[in-house]
Amino acid sequence: MPINPVRFRQSMEEMARVGATKGGGVNRLTLTDADKEARDLFALWAGDADLDLRIDEMGNMFARRSGREDDAPPAMAGSHLDSVPNGGRFDGSLGVLAALEAVRTLNDESIVTRRPIEIVNWTNEEGPRFPPSMVGSGVFAGAIPLEAAYETRDSEGARFLDELERIGYRGDAPCTPRPIGSYLELHIEQGPVLVNEGVQVGIVEGIFGLTWLRVTMKGERDHAGPTPMHLRRDALVGAARTIAAIREIPEKLHPEFVATVGELSLSPGAINVIPDEVTFSVDFRHSEPELMNEARNLVEEAVHREAERENLEVEIQDVGSSTPTAFDAGVAQAVRSACEESGYSHRSMWSAAGHDARYAADLGPAAMIFVPCVAGKSHSEEEDMDWEDGCRGCDVLARALVKMADS
Amino acid sequence: MPINPVRFRQSMEEMARVGATKGGGVNRLTLTDADKEARDLFALWAGDADLDLRIDEMGNMFARRSGREDDAPPAMAGSHLDSVPNGGRFDGSLGVLAALEAVRTLNDESIVTRRPIEIVNWTNEEGPRFPPSMVGSGVFAGAIPLEAAYETRDSEGARFLDELERIGYRGDAPCTPRPIGSYLELHIEQGPVLVNEGVQVGIVEGIFGLTWLRVTMKGERDHAGPTPMHLRRDALVGAARTIAAIREIPEKLHPEFVATVGELSLSPGAINVIPDEVTFSVDFRHSEPELMNEARNLVEEAVHREAERENLEVEIQDVGSSTPTAFDAGVAQAVRSACEESGYSHRSMWSAAGHDARYAADLGPAAMIFVPCVAGKSHSEEEDMDWEDGCRGCDVLARALVKMADS
Repeated sequence: MPINPVRFRQSMEEMARVGATKGGGVNRLTLTDADKEARDLFALWAGDADLDLRIDEMGNMFARRSGREDDAPPAMAGSHLDSVPNGGRFDGSLGVLAALEAVRTLNDESIVTRRPIEIVNWTNEEGPRFPPSMVGSGVFAGAIPLEAAYETRDSEGARFLDELERIGYRGDAPCTPRPIGSYLELHIEQGPVLVNEGVQVGIVEGIFGLTWLRVTMKGERDHAGPTPMHLRRDALVGAARTIAAIREIPEKLHPEFVATVGELSLSPGAINVIPDEVTFSVDFRHSEPELMNEARNLVEEAVHREAERENLEVEIQDVGSSTPTAFDAGVAQAVRSACEESGYSHRSMWSAAGHDARYAADLGPAAMIFVPCVAGKSHSEEEDMDWEDGCRGCDVLARALVKMADS
Repeated sequence: MPINPVRFRQSMEEMARVGATKGGGVNRLTLTDADKEARDLFALWAGDADLDLRIDEMGNMFARRSGREDDAPPAMAGSHLDSVPNGGRFDGSLGVLAALEAVRTLNDESIVTRRPIEIVNWTNEEGPRFPPSMVGSGVFAGAIPLEAAYETRDSEGARFLDELERIGYRGDAPCTPRPIGSYLELHIEQGPVLVNEGVQVGIVEGIFGLTWLRVTMKGERDHAGPTPMHLRRDALVGAARTIAAIREIPEKLHPEFVATVGELSLSPGAINVIPDEVTFSVDFRHSEPELMNEARNLVEEAVHREAERENLEVEIQDVGSSTPTAFDAGVAQAVRSACEESGYSHRSMWSAAGHDARYAADLGPAAMIFVPCVAGKSHSEEEDMDWEDGCRGCDVLARALVKMADS
């Protein structure tokens, strides 16, 4: 079942024009007009492919192709059409449109699968407009209450539910858990591993757990001149030493462990004043729950050690977490078989970024497929992909989807 | 010549009502209505004390008391009446009103000194509204061009010259260098040394040199999840290690060396994104030019070492500097004699904060007098002073001023 690379690329390019930025990316924040336009285009194409479109209360879109045993839980594949501000053209769209191309190919060849197939476009995977991320799949999996999602407001006060209704995508179908026969999601890697190793396909066997902390260190505001070094309580010195210590934690734990300080703000922030308060974030991720616990202990140890050394008060706040999600070995094996049928090089890996597959995995066996992206970049207009890689991913998705739909 | 502590305190309290804040501080930014009101009050009191008031082109106010040899360069004493936003009641005012009290005391006792005495209120010592600081004395000393000072604009676009004219303090006297017989400035210490050591008076023998740098480190923006630690170019990790290293520099050089990182900003500043650019300030100060040079080398070494370690690009910008200013041993000795006459404990010290005395020292022999301030705090409403300490400072200033006026 050879996919049609020209048709696939044309669809990708047409979708990339929706909310296109001058810099070659897309601006398709959730529930904006651009999001609506992307949804409308997907709905049009789903109709062209004779798919039955259902939209649920969260705006998740399911385009269904009947199976021989139409009551069997569906083989599902998809991703999301929303983007971060000035994001890339491939993050999300690739997984939705590759699933569409897979179904178009089945139509071309008049293949009927045992299970029905559903292509899904999840609402608000990204989350920057209406945090948190992955809220469409989260409500679908029963992990996030529908009402909580509805009441979320963006930075200008607009309510999720009002915006969902405004763009006409508050559907009738209940957004509640239902069994999935299998779930597959093709995505660009968003990291440099495949591209650096020259491997064509990543077989994603799970999603890292994640812990987000916010650390506040408080010292004393003093004039930078007349305050001798030994009398200082410099919150930035404490924070800097802690950040340097956090950088050393991953290598104590595992080669794939990652830890990042991405946010930092300080007060008062004047060239000649000793900072009295610094707040910074900590993000750490891995596949092993025990190592995640150990990392948390090491971070807390570093914070308290450096606070004591500089005589600071500290507060550590939990601001988010998810447990590691191991995908299904059977679905991963279908992906591996598909790679081998087509002769693509492949490797097993875990995703360190969150994806809707994490929630879908609560409802049935799931796995993901990664393809390389240029320099490992995403979430920016720089994001790019070699079309050959994208087509290989689409081919693997189509083959694995058929295997799962026939299983 | 005993000063009148009640009169001195009344004047200080009346001045503290000008621009008073609810928190017990003052808001007297340069060339605002509150600054004008403080100036008017000083002018009124100068008239009451039979002083001859001259205002120069920069708005510097000189209240002159004739001497027996009226053409001799004056014995000058003073400070400033402007404040930082929500600053303290003593920073600046103390030095101006103590000099006024000294002259009132001379009047009480009908003492005529050899040299004339001039009490000075320097314009814009603080600088937050119209940077840089100490601009009135800087123009007076010939170190800053008058036109440059005039053209400075505040953050709302108001021009220094326009504001100076608006409040009616653009005077006729040229603001150009002229010889000073001596210069004395009483000030709260703005640091914790005297209060911690229980010493009553600081004899200030010089002002630390200062170097201000702005360091920018550039790495690569990447997703905090999928980017393995060994492939990162994390600008915040580089900056944090550098800041931690800068903290260790002073103790390698001298117990009184100080170094501070007070500003830091980063980009993009998201919890799940590796920062690609961090900019931070470095402020270091000491009395020894060789140690200042050595510190600069050590800072640059640390920046380049940590940049290389994290594979970052760096830029180091000079944003300000002043060389150490040693005061005059004779004037310092007059202060010491005054302390001993009155039986006050005293110690020699250098000022790590800038003062107008730095520029005045270019025109004649100068020194400063410090008195303790509570907890070493200044530049905030918390700033406080024990009145006993303030009166001791006023007494020492009066005695030393008469010595210098008769020298």
